[in-house]
Amino acid sequence: MIPPVFVLVRPQMGENVGAAARAMLNFGLDRMRIVDPRDGWPNPKSVAMASGAGRVLDQAGLFPDVATSIADCDFVFATTARGRELVKLVVTPERAMEMTRAMAAEGKRVGVLFGPERAGLENDDIVQANAIVTVDVNPEFPSLNLAQCVLLLGYEWRRQGGVTPEMMELARTEFASRLEVDKLADHFEERLEAASFFFPPTKAEGMKANLRNMWARLGLTRAEVQTFHGMLRQIAWKLKNGGE
Amino acid sequence: MIPPVFVLVRPQMGENVGAAARAMLNFGLDRMRIVDPRDGWPNPKSVAMASGAGRVLDQAGLFPDVATSIADCDFVFATTARGRELVKLVVTPERAMEMTRAMAAEGKRVGVLFGPERAGLENDDIVQANAIVTVDVNPEFPSLNLAQCVLLLGYEWRRQGGVTPEMMELARTEFASRLEVDKLADHFEERLEAASFFFPPTKAEGMKANLRNMWARLGLTRAEVQTFHGMLRQIAWKLKNGGE
Repeated sequence: MIPPVFVLVRPQMGENVGAAARAMLNFGLDRMRIVDPRDGWPNPKSVAMASGAGRVLDQAGLFPDVATSIADCDFVFATTARGRELVKLVVTPERAMEMTRAMAAEGKRVGVLFGPERAGLENDDIVQANAIVTVDVNPEFPSLNLAQCVLLLGYEWRRQGGVTPEMMELARTEFASRLEVDKLADHFEERLEAASFFFPPTKAEGMKANLRNMWARLGLTRAEVQTFHGMLRQIAWKLKNGGE
Repeated sequence: MIPPVFVLVRPQMGENVGAAARAMLNFGLDRMRIVDPRDGWPNPKSVAMASGAGRVLDQAGLFPDVATSIADCDFVFATTARGRELVKLVVTPERAMEMTRAMAAEGKRVGVLFGPERAGLENDDIVQANAIVTVDVNPEFPSLNLAQCVLLLGYEWRRQGGVTPEMMELARTEFASRLEVDKLADHFEERLEAASFFFPPTKAEGMKANLRNMWARLGLTRAEVQTFHGMLRQIAWKLKNGGE
Protein backbone atom coordinates (compact mmCIF):
# COMPACT_ATOMS: atom_id res chain seq x y z
CA MET A 1 0.00 0.00 0.00
CA ILE A 2 1.55 3.28 -1.17
CA PRO A 3 1.04 6.04 1.41
CA PRO A 4 -0.12 9.40 0.05
CA VAL A 5 2.27 12.19 -0.94
CA PHE A 6 1.68 15.47 0.89
CA VAL A 7 2.53 18.42 -1.36
CA LEU A 8 3.19 21.82 0.24
CA VAL A 9 2.43 24.43 -2.39
CA ARG A 10 4.43 27.69 -2.17
CA PRO A 11 4.95 27.50 1.61
CA GLN A 12 6.09 30.79 3.12
CA MET A 13 7.74 30.28 6.52
CA GLY A 14 10.45 27.65 6.65
CA GLU A 15 9.38 26.79 10.21
CA ASN A 16 5.98 25.71 8.95
CA VAL A 17 7.53 23.23 6.53
CA GLY A 18 9.44 21.75 9.48
CA ALA A 19 6.28 21.63 11.61
CA ALA A 20 4.43 19.91 8.76
CA ALA A 21 7.21 17.29 8.56
CA ARG A 22 6.81 16.58 12.28
CA ALA A 23 3.03 16.38 11.97
CA MET A 24 3.35 13.87 9.11
CA LEU A 25 5.88 11.65 10.83
CA ASN A 26 3.65 11.42 13.92
CA PHE A 27 1.33 9.37 11.77
CA GLY A 28 4.01 7.47 9.89
CA LEU A 29 3.89 9.55 6.71
CA ASP A 30 7.20 10.60 5.19
CA ARG A 31 6.58 11.41 1.53
CA MET A 32 6.64 15.20 1.29
CA ARG A 33 6.95 17.35 -1.82
CA ILE A 34 7.53 21.07 -1.89
CA VAL A 35 6.48 23.42 -4.69
CA ASP A 36 8.31 26.72 -5.13
CA PRO A 37 8.91 27.62 -1.46
CA ARG A 38 9.09 31.37 -0.87
CA ASP A 39 12.40 31.32 0.99
CA GLY A 40 14.25 28.79 -1.14
CA TRP A 41 15.29 25.23 -0.44
CA PRO A 42 16.88 23.70 1.58
CA ASN A 43 15.88 25.99 4.42
CA PRO A 44 17.78 25.86 7.74
CA LYS A 45 14.70 27.09 9.62
CA SER A 46 12.75 24.10 8.37
CA VAL A 47 15.49 21.75 9.51
CA ALA A 48 15.64 23.33 12.99
CA MET A 49 11.88 23.08 13.42
CA ALA A 50 11.64 19.52 12.13
CA SER A 51 14.23 18.24 14.63
CA GLY A 52 13.59 14.49 14.80
CA ALA A 53 11.66 14.55 11.52
CA GLY A 54 14.60 15.84 9.49
CA ARG A 55 14.63 12.81 7.25
CA VAL A 56 11.21 13.77 5.90
CA LEU A 57 12.79 17.01 4.68
CA ASP A 58 15.92 15.26 3.38
CA GLN A 59 13.78 13.02 1.21
CA ALA A 60 11.37 15.78 0.15
CA GLY A 61 11.23 16.49 -3.58
CA LEU A 62 11.42 20.09 -4.80
CA PHE A 63 9.22 21.06 -7.76
CA PRO A 64 8.79 24.27 -9.74
CA ASP A 65 5.01 24.02 -10.04
CA VAL A 66 1.98 22.02 -9.00
CA ALA A 67 1.63 20.21 -12.33
CA THR A 68 5.09 18.62 -12.16
CA SER A 69 4.72 17.85 -8.46
CA ILE A 70 1.70 15.62 -9.05
CA ALA A 71 2.58 14.30 -12.50
CA ASP A 72 2.91 10.71 -11.24
CA CYS A 73 -0.24 10.80 -9.10
CA ASP A 74 -3.40 8.92 -10.09
CA PHE A 75 -5.64 11.03 -7.88
CA VAL A 76 -5.12 14.39 -6.20
CA PHE A 77 -6.94 16.11 -3.35
CA ALA A 78 -6.72 19.86 -2.75
CA THR A 79 -7.21 21.09 0.82
CA THR A 80 -9.18 24.32 1.04
CA ALA A 81 -10.73 26.18 3.91
CA ARG A 82 -13.81 27.48 2.20
CA GLY A 83 -16.07 26.57 -0.66
CA ARG A 84 -14.92 27.60 -4.11
CA GLU A 85 -16.78 28.47 -7.25
CA LEU A 86 -15.37 25.35 -8.85
CA VAL A 87 -17.53 22.35 -9.55
CA LYS A 88 -15.73 19.61 -7.74
CA LEU A 89 -16.45 16.92 -5.23
CA VAL A 90 -15.90 18.18 -1.66
CA VAL A 91 -15.14 15.57 0.99
CA THR A 92 -14.25 15.43 4.68
CA PRO A 93 -10.73 14.38 5.75
CA GLU A 94 -12.29 11.12 6.90
CA ARG A 95 -13.76 10.36 3.51
CA ALA A 96 -10.61 11.57 1.71
CA MET A 97 -8.38 9.15 3.59
CA GLU A 98 -10.92 6.36 3.14
CA MET A 99 -10.74 6.98 -0.62
CA THR A 100 -6.95 7.21 -0.41
CA ARG A 101 -6.68 3.85 1.33
CA ALA A 102 -9.01 2.26 -1.20
CA MET A 103 -6.98 3.63 -4.11
CA ALA A 104 -3.63 2.83 -2.48
CA ALA A 105 -4.78 -0.76 -2.03
CA GLU A 106 -5.14 -0.91 -5.80
CA GLY A 107 -1.61 0.40 -6.28
CA LYS A 108 -2.70 3.93 -7.13
CA ARG A 109 -0.72 6.98 -6.09
CA VAL A 110 -2.56 9.72 -4.25
CA GLY A 111 -1.38 13.27 -3.63
CA VAL A 112 -2.76 15.89 -1.25
CA LEU A 113 -2.11 19.57 -1.95
CA PHE A 114 -1.74 22.07 0.92
CA GLY A 115 -1.72 25.78 0.13
CA PRO A 116 0.47 28.63 1.38
CA GLU A 117 -0.13 29.81 4.94
CA ARG A 118 -1.82 33.09 4.26
CA ALA A 119 -4.11 32.63 1.31
CA GLY A 120 -4.35 28.89 0.74
CA LEU A 121 -4.43 27.26 -2.67
CA GLU A 122 -5.37 29.33 -5.70
CA ASN A 123 -8.03 28.26 -8.15
CA ASP A 124 -5.30 27.47 -10.70
CA ASP A 125 -3.93 24.90 -8.26
CA ILE A 126 -7.30 23.49 -7.32
CA VAL A 127 -8.47 22.81 -10.87
CA GLN A 128 -5.59 20.33 -11.14
CA ALA A 129 -7.02 18.23 -8.32
CA ASN A 130 -9.72 15.60 -8.62
CA ALA A 131 -11.47 16.53 -5.39
CA ILE A 132 -11.43 19.05 -2.57
CA VAL A 133 -10.91 18.19 1.11
CA THR A 134 -12.34 20.60 3.66
CA VAL A 135 -12.05 20.22 7.41
CA ASP A 136 -15.36 21.01 9.04
CA VAL A 137 -14.50 23.83 11.44
CA ASN A 138 -16.52 26.33 13.44
CA PRO A 139 -17.55 28.83 10.72
CA GLU A 140 -17.15 31.65 13.22
CA PHE A 141 -13.56 30.73 14.01
CA PRO A 142 -11.73 28.86 11.27
CA SER A 143 -8.06 29.18 12.17
CA LEU A 144 -6.28 25.97 11.19
CA ASN A 145 -2.68 26.57 10.23
CA LEU A 146 -0.66 24.60 7.68
CA ALA A 147 0.84 22.09 10.12
CA GLN A 148 -2.53 21.56 11.83
CA CYS A 149 -4.19 20.81 8.52
CA VAL A 150 -1.39 18.34 7.70
CA LEU A 151 -1.79 16.86 11.18
CA LEU A 152 -5.51 16.22 10.77
CA LEU A 153 -5.08 14.54 7.37
CA GLY A 154 -2.23 12.42 8.75
CA TYR A 155 -4.33 11.50 11.76
CA GLU A 156 -7.16 10.32 9.53
CA TRP A 157 -4.76 8.27 7.40
CA ARG A 158 -3.47 6.41 10.44
CA ARG A 159 -6.81 6.18 12.23
CA GLN A 160 -8.27 4.36 9.29
CA GLY A 161 -5.32 2.01 9.14
CA GLY A 162 -7.08 0.24 11.95
CA VAL A 163 -3.84 -0.47 13.80
CA THR A 164 -5.32 0.46 17.17
CA PRO A 165 -8.39 -1.15 18.60
CA GLU A 166 -10.87 1.49 19.74
CA MET A 167 -10.47 0.25 23.28
CA MET A 168 -7.61 -1.63 24.75
CA GLU A 169 -6.60 -2.69 28.20
CA LEU A 170 -3.00 -1.98 29.07
CA ALA A 171 -1.08 -4.94 27.76
CA ARG A 172 0.96 -5.59 30.85
CA THR A 173 -2.10 -5.93 33.07
CA GLU A 174 -2.55 -9.44 34.46
CA PHE A 175 -6.20 -9.95 35.14
CA ALA A 176 -7.34 -12.51 37.68
CA SER A 177 -8.58 -15.81 36.30
CA ARG A 178 -12.15 -16.94 36.73
CA LEU A 179 -10.98 -19.39 39.41
CA GLU A 180 -9.15 -16.69 41.37
CA VAL A 181 -12.20 -14.48 41.33
CA ASP A 182 -14.37 -17.37 42.52
CA LYS A 183 -11.99 -18.10 45.39
CA LEU A 184 -12.14 -14.47 46.42
CA ALA A 185 -15.94 -14.63 46.37
CA ASP A 186 -15.76 -17.80 48.50
CA HIS A 187 -13.46 -16.10 50.96
CA PHE A 188 -15.80 -13.13 51.31
CA GLU A 189 -18.85 -15.35 51.69
CA GLU A 190 -17.13 -17.36 54.40
CA ARG A 191 -16.17 -14.28 56.41
CA LEU A 192 -19.51 -12.60 55.90
CA GLU A 193 -21.32 -15.77 56.87
CA ALA A 194 -19.27 -15.83 60.06
CA ALA A 195 -20.21 -12.22 60.67
CA SER A 196 -23.94 -13.00 60.19
CA PHE A 197 -24.05 -10.61 57.26
CA PHE A 198 -26.54 -12.66 55.24
CA PHE A 199 -29.72 -11.81 57.05
CA PRO A 200 -32.62 -12.61 56.95
CA PRO A 201 -31.91 -16.19 55.78
CA THR A 202 -34.61 -16.04 53.09
CA LYS A 203 -32.63 -13.30 51.36
CA ALA A 204 -29.21 -14.90 51.75
CA GLU A 205 -29.15 -16.62 48.35
CA GLY A 206 -30.08 -13.44 46.52
CA MET A 207 -27.48 -11.41 48.38
CA LYS A 208 -24.80 -13.96 47.55
CA ALA A 209 -25.76 -14.03 43.90
CA ASN A 210 -25.54 -10.24 43.68
CA LEU A 211 -22.09 -10.30 45.25
CA ARG A 212 -20.86 -13.05 42.87
CA ASN A 213 -22.16 -11.01 39.98
CA MET A 214 -20.31 -7.94 41.20
CA TRP A 215 -16.98 -9.75 41.53
CA ALA A 216 -17.32 -11.13 38.04
CA ARG A 217 -18.12 -7.73 36.63
CA LEU A 218 -15.32 -5.74 38.24
CA GLY A 219 -12.47 -7.08 36.12
CA LEU A 220 -10.04 -7.27 39.03
CA THR A 221 -6.37 -7.83 38.47
CA ARG A 222 -4.50 -10.67 40.11
CA ALA A 223 -2.80 -8.16 42.43
CA GLU A 224 -6.10 -6.61 43.46
CA VAL A 225 -7.53 -10.04 44.29
CA GLN A 226 -4.53 -10.68 46.54
CA THR A 227 -5.05 -7.31 48.20
CA PHE A 228 -8.68 -8.17 48.96
CA HIS A 229 -7.65 -11.50 50.47
CA GLY A 230 -5.09 -9.69 52.61
CA MET A 231 -7.64 -7.11 53.76
CA LEU A 232 -10.10 -9.82 54.82
CA ARG A 233 -7.44 -11.79 56.68
CA GLN A 234 -6.21 -8.70 58.47
CA ILE A 235 -9.68 -7.65 59.58
CA ALA A 236 -10.38 -11.20 60.82
CA TRP A 237 -7.10 -11.26 62.74
CA LYS A 238 -7.83 -7.90 64.33
CA LEU A 239 -11.34 -9.00 65.37
CA LYS A 240 -10.02 -12.25 66.88
CA ASN A 241 -7.14 -10.62 68.71
CA GLY A 242 -9.35 -7.89 70.03
CA GLY A 243 -8.82 -4.49 68.50
CA GLU A 244 -10.54 -1.33 69.69
CA MET B 1 -26.00 18.42 24.96
CA ILE B 2 -23.25 19.70 27.26
CA PRO B 3 -19.91 19.92 25.43
CA PRO B 4 -16.87 18.52 27.25
CA VAL B 5 -14.63 20.63 29.47
CA PHE B 6 -10.96 20.61 28.47
CA VAL B 7 -8.72 20.92 31.52
CA LEU B 8 -5.11 22.04 31.03
CA VAL B 9 -3.15 20.68 33.99
CA ARG B 10 -0.11 22.72 35.08
CA PRO B 11 0.57 24.18 31.61
CA GLN B 12 4.02 25.74 31.31
CA MET B 13 4.21 28.17 28.39
CA GLY B 14 1.46 30.78 28.25
CA GLU B 15 1.59 30.63 24.45
CA ASN B 16 0.52 27.01 24.53
CA VAL B 17 -2.58 27.83 26.53
CA GLY B 18 -3.46 30.41 23.87
CA ALA B 19 -2.81 27.90 21.08
CA ALA B 20 -5.01 25.35 22.86
CA ALA B 21 -7.82 27.93 23.06
CA ARG B 22 -7.57 28.46 19.30
CA ALA B 23 -7.54 24.73 18.65
CA MET B 24 -10.67 24.28 20.77
CA LEU B 25 -12.62 27.11 19.21
CA ASN B 26 -11.92 25.74 15.72
CA PHE B 27 -14.23 22.91 16.65
CA GLY B 28 -16.74 24.99 18.56
CA LEU B 29 -15.47 24.10 22.06
CA ASP B 30 -15.10 26.95 24.53
CA ARG B 31 -15.16 25.42 28.02
CA MET B 32 -11.54 25.50 29.22
CA ARG B 33 -10.23 25.05 32.75
CA ILE B 34 -6.69 25.67 33.90
CA VAL B 35 -5.02 23.99 36.86
CA ASP B 36 -2.08 25.70 38.56
CA PRO B 37 -0.38 27.23 35.49
CA ARG B 38 3.39 27.63 35.91
CA ASP B 39 3.51 31.30 34.94
CA GLY B 40 0.39 32.52 36.75
CA TRP B 41 -2.95 33.63 35.44
CA PRO B 42 -4.07 35.63 33.57
CA ASN B 43 -1.09 35.43 31.24
CA PRO B 44 -0.60 38.10 28.55
CA LYS B 45 1.30 35.62 26.35
CA SER B 46 -1.75 33.36 26.30
CA VAL B 47 -3.95 36.26 25.29
CA ALA B 48 -1.61 37.32 22.49
CA MET B 49 -1.44 33.78 21.10
CA ALA B 50 -5.18 33.16 21.35
CA SER B 51 -6.02 36.28 19.31
CA GLY B 52 -9.56 35.62 18.06
CA ALA B 53 -10.11 32.93 20.67
CA GLY B 54 -9.59 35.28 23.61
CA ARG B 55 -13.08 34.68 24.93
CA VAL B 56 -12.19 31.05 25.64
CA LEU B 57 -9.49 32.34 27.98
CA ASP B 58 -11.75 35.00 29.50
CA GLN B 59 -14.25 32.33 30.47
CA ALA B 60 -11.65 29.80 31.59
CA GLY B 61 -11.84 28.72 35.22
CA LEU B 62 -8.66 28.66 37.31
CA PHE B 63 -8.25 25.80 39.81
CA PRO B 64 -5.58 24.95 42.38
CA ASP B 65 -5.57 21.20 41.67
CA VAL B 66 -7.02 18.49 39.46
CA ALA B 67 -9.54 17.28 42.04
CA THR B 68 -11.33 20.62 42.31
CA SER B 69 -11.15 21.20 38.54
CA ILE B 70 -13.20 18.08 37.82
CA ALA B 71 -15.38 18.03 40.93
CA ASP B 72 -18.57 18.61 38.93
CA CYS B 73 -17.71 16.09 36.18
CA ASP B 74 -19.50 12.76 35.87
CA PHE B 75 -16.75 11.19 33.80
CA VAL B 76 -13.14 12.18 33.16
CA PHE B 77 -10.64 11.19 30.51
CA ALA B 78 -6.89 11.63 30.95
CA THR B 79 -4.81 12.09 27.80
CA THR B 80 -1.46 10.34 27.92
CA ALA B 81 1.17 9.61 25.33
CA ARG B 82 2.28 6.22 26.53
CA GLY B 83 0.92 3.28 28.44
CA ARG B 84 1.00 3.57 32.21
CA GLU B 85 1.27 1.01 34.93
CA LEU B 86 -2.27 1.85 35.96
CA VAL B 87 -5.13 -0.50 35.28
CA LYS B 88 -7.54 1.62 33.39
CA LEU B 89 -9.49 1.53 30.20
CA VAL B 90 -7.49 3.01 27.30
CA VAL B 91 -9.42 4.35 24.34
CA THR B 92 -8.76 6.15 21.06
CA PRO B 93 -9.82 9.81 20.64
CA GLU B 94 -12.55 8.53 18.35
CA ARG B 95 -13.99 6.23 20.99
CA ALA B 96 -13.51 8.83 23.73
CA MET B 97 -15.58 11.42 21.90
CA GLU B 98 -18.18 8.80 21.00
CA MET B 99 -18.51 8.02 24.72
CA THR B 100 -18.54 11.75 25.51
CA ARG B 101 -21.40 12.40 23.10
CA ALA B 102 -23.36 9.47 24.50
CA MET B 103 -22.88 10.71 28.06
CA ALA B 104 -23.54 14.34 27.14
CA ALA B 105 -26.80 13.28 25.54
CA GLU B 106 -27.85 11.96 28.95
CA GLY B 107 -26.99 15.27 30.58
CA LYS B 108 -23.67 14.09 32.00
CA ARG B 109 -20.63 16.33 32.27
CA VAL B 110 -17.40 15.07 30.78
CA GLY B 111 -13.92 16.45 31.40
CA VAL B 112 -10.70 15.77 29.50
CA LEU B 113 -7.36 16.30 31.25
CA PHE B 114 -4.30 17.43 29.27
CA GLY B 115 -0.89 17.33 30.94
CA PRO B 116 1.97 19.81 31.04
CA GLU B 117 4.02 20.17 27.87
CA ARG B 118 7.18 18.41 28.91
CA ALA B 119 6.21 15.43 31.01
CA GLY B 120 2.49 15.00 30.55
CA LEU B 121 0.09 14.02 33.31
CA GLU B 122 1.45 12.38 36.45
CA ASN B 123 0.04 9.17 37.85
CA ASP B 124 -1.55 11.14 40.69
CA ASP B 125 -3.57 13.04 38.08
CA ILE B 126 -4.43 9.99 36.02
CA VAL B 127 -5.84 7.93 38.89
CA GLN B 128 -8.54 10.59 39.22
CA ALA B 129 -9.78 9.89 35.69
CA ASN B 130 -12.18 7.15 34.65
CA ALA B 131 -10.35 6.30 31.44
CA ILE B 132 -7.24 7.11 29.45
CA VAL B 133 -7.23 8.53 25.90
CA THR B 134 -4.17 7.85 23.79
CA VAL B 135 -3.67 9.09 20.24
CA ASP B 136 -2.24 6.31 18.12
CA VAL B 137 0.99 7.81 16.79
CA ASN B 138 4.06 6.40 15.09
CA PRO B 139 5.91 4.76 18.01
CA GLU B 140 9.20 5.85 16.47
CA PHE B 141 8.20 9.50 16.37
CA PRO B 142 5.58 10.53 18.91
CA SER B 143 5.81 14.32 19.02
CA LEU B 144 2.32 15.73 19.55
CA ASN B 145 2.38 18.98 21.47
CA LEU B 146 -0.31 20.23 23.83
CA ALA B 147 -2.27 22.26 21.28
CA GLN B 148 -2.09 19.43 18.73
CA CYS B 149 -3.49 16.98 21.25
CA VAL B 150 -6.30 19.42 22.06
CA LEU B 151 -6.85 19.89 18.32
CA LEU B 152 -7.28 16.17 17.67
CA LEU B 153 -9.75 15.67 20.51
CA GLY B 154 -11.70 18.74 19.39
CA TYR B 155 -11.70 17.47 15.82
CA GLU B 156 -13.14 14.13 16.94
CA TRP B 157 -15.83 15.89 18.98
CA ARG B 158 -16.99 17.86 15.99
CA ARG B 159 -16.50 15.08 13.45
CA GLN B 160 -18.86 12.88 15.36
CA GLY B 161 -21.40 15.66 15.61
CA GLY B 162 -22.29 14.62 12.11
CA VAL B 163 -22.81 18.17 10.94
CA THR B 164 -21.00 17.63 7.65
CA PRO B 165 -21.96 14.97 5.18
CA GLU B 166 -18.92 12.92 4.21
CA MET B 167 -19.29 14.14 0.65
CA MET B 168 -21.00 17.20 -0.59
CA GLU B 169 -21.30 18.95 -3.88
CA LEU B 170 -20.83 22.67 -3.74
CA ALA B 171 -24.25 23.99 -2.97
CA ARG B 172 -24.38 26.59 -5.67
CA THR B 173 -23.75 24.10 -8.47
CA GLU B 174 -26.65 23.66 -10.85
CA PHE B 175 -26.39 20.27 -12.42
CA ALA B 176 -27.99 19.54 -15.76
CA SER B 177 -31.27 17.66 -15.66
CA ARG B 178 -31.66 14.23 -17.16
CA LEU B 179 -33.53 15.80 -20.10
CA GLU B 180 -30.77 18.33 -20.77
CA VAL B 181 -28.16 15.58 -20.78
CA ASP B 182 -30.27 13.52 -23.17
CA LYS B 183 -30.64 16.47 -25.52
CA LEU B 184 -26.89 16.94 -25.51
CA ALA B 185 -26.43 13.26 -26.33
CA ASP B 186 -28.96 13.66 -29.16
CA HIS B 187 -27.10 16.67 -30.50
CA PHE B 188 -23.79 14.80 -30.47
CA GLU B 189 -25.31 11.74 -32.13
CA GLU B 190 -26.82 13.88 -34.85
CA ARG B 191 -23.55 15.64 -35.65
CA LEU B 192 -21.52 12.47 -35.45
CA GLU B 193 -24.01 10.67 -37.66
CA ALA B 194 -23.62 13.45 -40.20
CA ALA B 195 -19.85 13.06 -39.95
CA SER B 196 -20.12 9.27 -40.53
CA PHE B 197 -18.55 8.63 -37.15
CA PHE B 198 -20.62 5.52 -36.39
CA PHE B 199 -18.82 3.00 -38.56
CA PRO B 200 -19.13 0.11 -39.28
CA PRO B 201 -22.95 0.15 -39.09
CA THR B 202 -23.02 -3.12 -37.12
CA LYS B 203 -21.19 -1.41 -34.28
CA ALA B 204 -23.18 1.83 -34.36
CA GLU B 205 -25.68 0.85 -31.66
CA GLY B 206 -22.95 -0.19 -29.23
CA MET B 207 -20.97 2.99 -29.85
CA LYS B 208 -24.06 5.10 -29.20
CA ALA B 209 -24.88 3.25 -26.00
CA ASN B 210 -21.37 3.78 -24.71
CA LEU B 211 -21.60 7.50 -25.42
CA ARG B 212 -25.00 7.79 -23.70
CA ASN B 213 -23.57 6.01 -20.71
CA MET B 214 -20.65 8.40 -20.58
CA TRP B 215 -22.84 11.52 -20.69
CA ALA B 216 -24.96 10.16 -17.89
CA ARG B 217 -21.93 9.37 -15.77
CA LEU B 218 -20.12 12.67 -16.12
CA GLY B 219 -22.38 14.73 -13.91
CA LEU B 220 -22.23 17.80 -16.14
CA THR B 221 -23.51 21.14 -14.97
CA ARG B 222 -26.12 23.07 -16.90
CA ALA B 223 -23.40 25.53 -17.98
CA GLU B 224 -21.15 22.77 -19.24
CA VAL B 225 -23.97 21.27 -21.28
CA GLN B 226 -24.51 24.68 -22.91
CA THR B 227 -20.79 24.92 -23.62
CA PHE B 228 -20.84 21.55 -25.38
CA HIS B 229 -23.80 22.59 -27.52
CA GLY B 230 -21.95 25.77 -28.42
CA MET B 231 -18.80 23.87 -29.35
CA LEU B 232 -20.71 21.51 -31.62
CA ARG B 233 -22.57 24.34 -33.33
CA GLN B 234 -19.39 26.31 -33.86
CA ILE B 235 -17.54 23.36 -35.38
CA ALA B 236 -20.49 22.65 -37.67
CA TRP B 237 -20.64 26.28 -38.78
CA LYS B 238 -16.92 26.34 -39.49
CA LEU B 239 -17.13 23.12 -41.52
CA LYS B 240 -20.05 24.44 -43.55
CA ASN B 241 -18.57 27.86 -44.18
CA GLY B 242 -15.23 26.36 -45.10
CA GLY B 243 -12.46 26.94 -42.63
CA GLU B 244 -9.02 25.52 -43.12
